[in-house]
Amino acid sequence: MANGAQALMKTLADAGVEVCFSNPGTSEMHFVAALDSEPRMRAVLALFEGVATGAADGYARMAGKPAATLLHLGCGLGNGLANLHNARKGRVPVLNIVGDHATYHMPLDAQLQSDIETVARNVSPGFVRTSMRTEDLSRDAVDALVAARGLPGQVATLILPADVSWGEGATPCAPPPPATPTAADAAVVEDVAGVLRSGAKVALLLGGHALREAGLEAAGRIAARTGAKLLAEVFPTRLERGAGLPPVERVAYLAELAGVQLGQFEHLVLVDAKTPVSFFAYPGKASELVPPGCRVHTLSRHDQDAVASLGALVAALGAGDAEPVRQPASRPPRPRGKLTAAKVCKAVGHLLPDRAIVVDEAITSGLMLGMMTAGAPRHDLITLTGGAIGQGLPSAVGAAIACPDRKVVALIGDGTAMYTIQALWTMARENLDVTAIVFNNASYSVLNVELERVGAERIGPKARSQLDIGGPGLDFARLAQGMGVHAVRTDTAEAFCHAFEYALDAPGPHLIDAVVPESLGGAKRRILPWLLRSLPSLPPGLALALKRKLAP
Amino acid sequence: MANGAQALMKTLADAGVEVCFSNPGTSEMHFVAALDSEPRMRAVLALFEGVATGAADGYARMAGKPAATLLHLGCGLGNGLANLHNARKGRVPVLNIVGDHATYHMPLDAQLQSDIETVARNVSPGFVRTSMRTEDLSRDAVDALVAARGLPGQVATLILPADVSWGEGATPCAPPPPATPTAADAAVVEDVAGVLRSGAKVALLLGGHALREAGLEAAGRIAARTGAKLLAEVFPTRLERGAGLPPVERVAYLAELAGVQLGQFEHLVLVDAKTPVSFFAYPGKASELVPPGCRVHTLSRHDQDAVASLGALVAALGAGDAEPVRQPASRPPRPRGKLTAAKVCKAVGHLLPDRAIVVDEAITSGLMLGMMTAGAPRHDLITLTGGAIGQGLPSAVGAAIACPDRKVVALIGDGTAMYTIQALWTMARENLDVTAIVFNNASYSVLNVELERVGAERIGPKARSQLDIGGPGLDFARLAQGMGVHAVRTDTAEAFCHAFEYALDAPGPHLIDAVVPESLGGAKRRILPWLLRSLPSLPPGLALALKRKLAP
Repeated sequence: MANGAQALMKTLADAGVEVCFSNPGTSEMHFVAALDSEPRMRAVLALFEGVATGAADGYARMAGKPAATLLHLGCGLGNGLANLHNARKGRVPVLNIVGDHATYHMPLDAQLQSDIETVARNVSPGFVRTSMRTEDLSRDAVDALVAARGLPGQVATLILPADVSWGEGATPCAPPPPATPTAADAAVVEDVAGVLRSGAKVALLLGGHALREAGLEAAGRIAARTGAKLLAEVFPTRLERGAGLPPVERVAYLAELAGVQLGQFEHLVLVDAKTPVSFFAYPGKASELVPPGCRVHTLSRHDQDAVASLGALVAALGAGDAEPVRQPASRPPRPRGKLTAAKVCKAVGHLLPDRAIVVDEAITSGLMLGMMTAGAPRHDLITLTGGAIGQGLPSAVGAAIACPDRKVVALIGDGTAMYTIQALWTMARENLDVTAIVFNNASYSVLNVELERVGAERIGPKARSQLDIGGPGLDFARLAQGMGVHAVRTDTAEAFCHAFEYALDAPGPHLIDAVVPESLGGAKRRILPWLLRSLPSLPPGLALALKRKLAP
Repeated sequence: MANGAQALMKTLADAGVEVCFSNPGTSEMHFVAALDSEPRMRAVLALFEGVATGAADGYARMAGKPAATLLHLGCGLGNGLANLHNARKGRVPVLNIVGDHATYHMPLDAQLQSDIETVARNVSPGFVRTSMRTEDLSRDAVDALVAARGLPGQVATLILPADVSWGEGATPCAPPPPATPTAADAAVVEDVAGVLRSGAKVALLLGGHALREAGLEAAGRIAARTGAKLLAEVFPTRLERGAGLPPVERVAYLAELAGVQLGQFEHLVLVDAKTPVSFFAYPGKASELVPPGCRVHTLSRHDQDAVASLGALVAALGAGDAEPVRQPASRPPRPRGKLTAAKVCKAVGHLLPDRAIVVDEAITSGLMLGMMTAGAPRHDLITLTGGAIGQGLPSAVGAAIACPDRKVVALIGDGTAMYTIQALWTMARENLDVTAIVFNNASYSVLNVELERVGAERIGPKARSQLDIGGPGLDFARLAQGMGVHAVRTDTAEAFCHAFEYALDAPGPHLIDAVVPESLGGAKRRILPWLLRSLPSLPPGLALALKRKLAP
């Protein structure tokens, strides 16, 4: 005979949920107590809920299955919301377990009482349930898991009142069957194959599961046979890349660039991807990025098997024996001299170990990262799917727990790092093999660009100060050391390379505080010159098209 | 001719909103740009939204009027939710301005798109509005301010789409008239006066505005005339206390204690306070703290003028010339030897300067704070009204900005400090006169108590590790220094007193990392002995009653 928490724990473990990223309070104490009844469940403590939810996101991206989070009422869920948003937008499975007051305590409006379901709906539109009876709890958990693990993956939130958790009479529930997604309909495949055979200019926009090796291989064959261009979503959930894999070109963050990138195509075929739109709206500019006259086709919806759909397309095109273009191995040379953001990216490309997991939340400073690591040994790239900054460090925690035999390299902007800086403590506590590189340019640099892009032209000192985080300057080495993480501060390329080599050699967490100038220059820059300066980081075809467009 | 953001800024300033605690993104850039058009508006940047919202809460508690927050879409609001919850529970006015995508961009489901209103309703049930037209924006802001500043005060959320902000054709709106709350009905006053005259055992439970000087003076007269006991809500929004003021006894956090405290009364009179309930539910224990047979009366509802209601009661009782009992001036001696949490509280009582603002988020370590500072010079006490930890440091930021001529002393648990540790950077940036004292006991100490209180008896190592934040130990001095705040680490009472004296003498932010043993002892403690040990910190009458009850 088990109490609710114990039965829940066994149900989760039976279903393959092995990790719980937690920040518990009193209402979760029975769940915490039940941890010792289930040897298959690992509990990873975070000092802030945004770390727990971001870690669950990063874990699921790499493990291919959900972790649980354990959060304390509406406030704990609120603290975790931003990174759950990133998981939702990345279609990543996460199972939230949110403790609540005992059912009979709720009407009393105690201090921590709030409407949890209303908060949860923001990130869990597909599954929010308050489990009201101990005997239903395990079944509710299975329902939540089915929702989370389906296609598309999603965030499911199970609200667990304290008395349902401590109540006796619960029995564990058998694990749910695996989801069985289907491939695209034959008619759709034939339609897309017809477009590809037509000789028109076609791009495949790959997202979600299409960006893993099997999807890339299939897409590569299609491209080799038909001449189609392979594009990737601007912020992939998980992109496999590096030497030997078919390369894909990511849609640019800046709408100005993305418009040029997409402007050349007559057909855009979506494969587990959304129709691309501008990240933000800008006065007088279109939000849609697909050019007028370009037809959009959906080969594989989010609820379908992208790899199987691509396989069907390969078969329809008779491209099974086509040899994809593959990324040649190549690394940039070792950088020298005063450190810059570009040199950090260069050093990462120069030294990135085989099978690394690269977490990119470097915003402006990471501009050159894609180019510098293109020919590095094979690696996975995790990016900011929902635009809610503060995802990088927590995501690295989760990735490292999912893949303890791989190096995790997290590149983080200084502004973004501060949202969930508490992740460093969990890295130290769990001795995770993560090297965090913080680009310390003392600025919300991207906002300097955005301020101009939105047309807010006359900028005074008060406005400018809202983008400046250099007064006082942040010392990330001290912050890391204060949480038990080995750290150094570097301002030359030589020192950076040395620190990075040391970090890669010595297992366990490291932070490198990379002091760099703001990569986008001073306050008086304009967007056009900046675009021109960014050309070297772009794929050659795009750079050329852009130069033509921007030339006076 | 102004754009929406400029008109909004002028409308806010005209209505007396002088501070905006901000963490902006691209969708808020026009609001940021408009800051320089309004010299009366001060923008205070936070590196995390929970700092901005907690600061707005602390500011309003001390300034007596709302500040604005500036938050970035649903994710920014999510990050700020926990401290908005504390403001809601404390009935504190806060005006959230949450930027959103341009109205025409919303249907495109871009990366940062989410349902902001659903999140906002958790903390702003009384006012959530998306302003859809530039010409309506100023009027919408005034409506939000009316909602926020009314009685009771509340959190109001105005969602501001980017195109409404950048659109032209807006005009500022005249400020709303001040709220005019009314006092209790004469019949209610007469009824309560009859109870007080009856000779029965009566307690007045004071909350909200009744805990400021005017309310305490009136309540003190009533107590002096009738023998009624004066109690305060367990977590007051703002309590004026210290030498010369009528003292009130706070209802205990532990239901076991509160039950004893309230058990002696036949009548409980609520004055801007809620019927007391247990903070959490516990198996087999009642959640209601009012004993059976005790009648509850409401003198003044939250939407009424508590001070005027108490004044009417003073008049009805003819107590205008009664002299309240006043707290005598007295300070504990200077502590010596190895540092403990109790000695930190003693040192604070020994040294607290006149007119200090004390922020108490010390959870278990602050147990002795109330007693040790009871006879200190007059001060204000700000507490954790909603139970969402991470409120203390941000609240200190806001209090210091509201009262630049007063010392702010924030006592914070180590676990709680980590939720919003980024507040230290804003203290350094704004050179705020805050001394933050972190009780570093390497534990979520309160959860060790709660684990037993909820009856989770058999605790294994995995469960225990979820309450232990000592591996690795946090070095708060380094964390503070990493954000530009002067800090020291102390483990003797002598060093602590020296550091505290230095901090009080030198204007600007300081942090003292107070290394103390866990105040509740080892893992094997039981709740009863702990209650007995806590007796010295309780008011004598309660301690005596408790001893009798707990004696074998």
